[in-house]
Amino acid sequence: MKNVNIAVIGFGNIGRAFVRVLALKRKLLAKKYGVNINVVAVVDSKGMVIKPSGLDDYEMLKLCEVPKSGIYMFGSYAKQGVNVEEVYSKAAPNIHVELTPANYVSGEPGFTNIMLALKSGAHVVTANKAPLVLHYEDIMAEARVRKLAVKFRATVMGGTPFLEVLASMKSHDIEKVEGILNATTNYILTEMHDNLLDFEQALKKAQALGIAETDPTLDIEGFDAAAKLTIISYVIGKPININSIYRESVTKITLKDVLDAVKQGQVIKYIASLDAQKMVASVKIERIPRENVFAQINGTLNGVKIKSDATELFFIGRGGGRMETAHTVLDDVLEVALRWFT
Amino acid sequence: MKNVNIAVIGFGNIGRAFVRVLALKRKLLAKKYGVNINVVAVVDSKGMVIKPSGLDDYEMLKLCEVPKSGIYMFGSYAKQGVNVEEVYSKAAPNIHVELTPANYVSGEPGFTNIMLALKSGAHVVTANKAPLVLHYEDIMAEARVRKLAVKFRATVMGGTPFLEVLASMKSHDIEKVEGILNATTNYILTEMHDNLLDFEQALKKAQALGIAETDPTLDIEGFDAAAKLTIISYVIGKPININSIYRESVTKITLKDVLDAVKQGQVIKYIASLDAQKMVASVKIERIPRENVFAQINGTLNGVKIKSDATELFFIGRGGGRMETAHTVLDDVLEVALRWFT
Repeated sequence: MKNVNIAVIGFGNIGRAFVRVLALKRKLLAKKYGVNINVVAVVDSKGMVIKPSGLDDYEMLKLCEVPKSGIYMFGSYAKQGVNVEEVYSKAAPNIHVELTPANYVSGEPGFTNIMLALKSGAHVVTANKAPLVLHYEDIMAEARVRKLAVKFRATVMGGTPFLEVLASMKSHDIEKVEGILNATTNYILTEMHDNLLDFEQALKKAQALGIAETDPTLDIEGFDAAAKLTIISYVIGKPININSIYRESVTKITLKDVLDAVKQGQVIKYIASLDAQKMVASVKIERIPRENVFAQINGTLNGVKIKSDATELFFIGRGGGRMETAHTVLDDVLEVALRWFT
Repeated sequence: MKNVNIAVIGFGNIGRAFVRVLALKRKLLAKKYGVNINVVAVVDSKGMVIKPSGLDDYEMLKLCEVPKSGIYMFGSYAKQGVNVEEVYSKAAPNIHVELTPANYVSGEPGFTNIMLALKSGAHVVTANKAPLVLHYEDIMAEARVRKLAVKFRATVMGGTPFLEVLASMKSHDIEKVEGILNATTNYILTEMHDNLLDFEQALKKAQALGIAETDPTLDIEGFDAAAKLTIISYVIGKPININSIYRESVTKITLKDVLDAVKQGQVIKYIASLDAQKMVASVKIERIPRENVFAQINGTLNGVKIKSDATELFFIGRGGGRMETAHTVLDDVLEVALRWFT
């Protein structure tokens, strides 16, 4: 049995779901794959828990119950203040799991954390998009030099790991990638359509259910979908800067627009699209014929179409539920663990 | 620039499509990925071409034009008779590409070829399902001992590489995999539905278009879909023997059945299903509600749903067109080349 030590940096919804899933499944996974995933550090916005020998399952589950930003209160391994360098000097994790929130202005703290991890010799798994969107080439250059992996399947369609497939289509000339990449806005549009809500009502319902954030700007202004298009553009080797992506605001859509579309056998969807031949990308409100696959993708489902010179394929699945995303992050961790440590 | 030498064993429709795509794209791929894929041998049912320094693009394209089973006539590198051992002793390929036809009785010649390749130290890429269906564990045990890769994405939904995603969902408990896995029968059912053909007419049309084989038994008796379910069962670590899979014949379906279903808002589909909890699998005729995703998968499209304890996702794409499958085989070759030789 090989031990692989991981540090979990960022402990919000996804971080907690990840630690909980790991606590519940790691014995089974150890038996199945011969590798034991050991959590040696957890960091939130105000404190750290560092235990170089690894938290046991019970400690991991208890940790998920502390109040938000409260892990500094977690007994003898805990301390106040955040210092990721200390995580590396004290616990030397093999894999760095970056789950901090996305900040598209600075990319921080994710970018600094990821670079520190790579410079300390740790592989990186991230669900935080911002460092990749703003600093993809710097991160990958550092990883290449040090022969370390950077995995980020959870950043696009968190519950539907299609990025790996896209990356594996190496013999294809990828011509176009388009889809419904933001779960929150697709939920809002589905509510408007199915329950005849206006935009504000549908947004409030999404917020009440925890599907939309208190500040929904990143989703409803198309920024989240644009960030995903940027990551996709890097994966296919044709980078497009996020600032050059044309974005329409989904707030423009009225209930009348939705009903007008229905009368014409259409559905309004918020479509993110990357044309890799013209090298243009956009996040736009579009009318889709009812029989089109995209018209069937409702609620918090996401869907994407990949068109290459040789084929065309669709992926449909959860956009980013906590548990789904936690499993995708864990799959990335397992892949690195099995590829590099067994 | 690293050279990786490959042997192409089997030179029917897929073999020719593969060699043609490679001839047209390999300069571009070499530039993009820093690896040059060199074809050092091609073998068909009656002869071999062996050129240890590698065929040039022009020779590869010319080779695709020789009559079926006619490569023994291909100039100075060609000879009559098949002897794969000679390929290994003379050209020592790094990657073995197995594209012989599937024989579900013996698994031959694929199984012997693949074992010979592994024992000679070559990685294996196969689009031939039969050796995996009948000898998966023997093949993987040999590969493990020798630390060699065996890739087979093209065996299930050739144009839609979903097997890799399934394999990567390591933290999931896969509960069910079901879908439309055979393109020929889905084409026949779509023709019956859309153009009111009876089964025999639709089959003849499929044969005329090269979608169905002259002997369509493997497709219409559900054997091809069952073989794919067996491979899927191995990938998720819960093997089901092909002989224990319940198969209904699609020939039972009449035009009246199709029309009766339409009257009830349903579509008849030929559904392959693997229940990994009950450990049962089947290939059955089912009535699907019109609004279900599977009802939208028509013609030669394939589709599959993966249900795990944490998520549910769909893949839709080409089942097995020549060019699509050739690209998937080439993607496997590139993945092995980049992972092991650069």
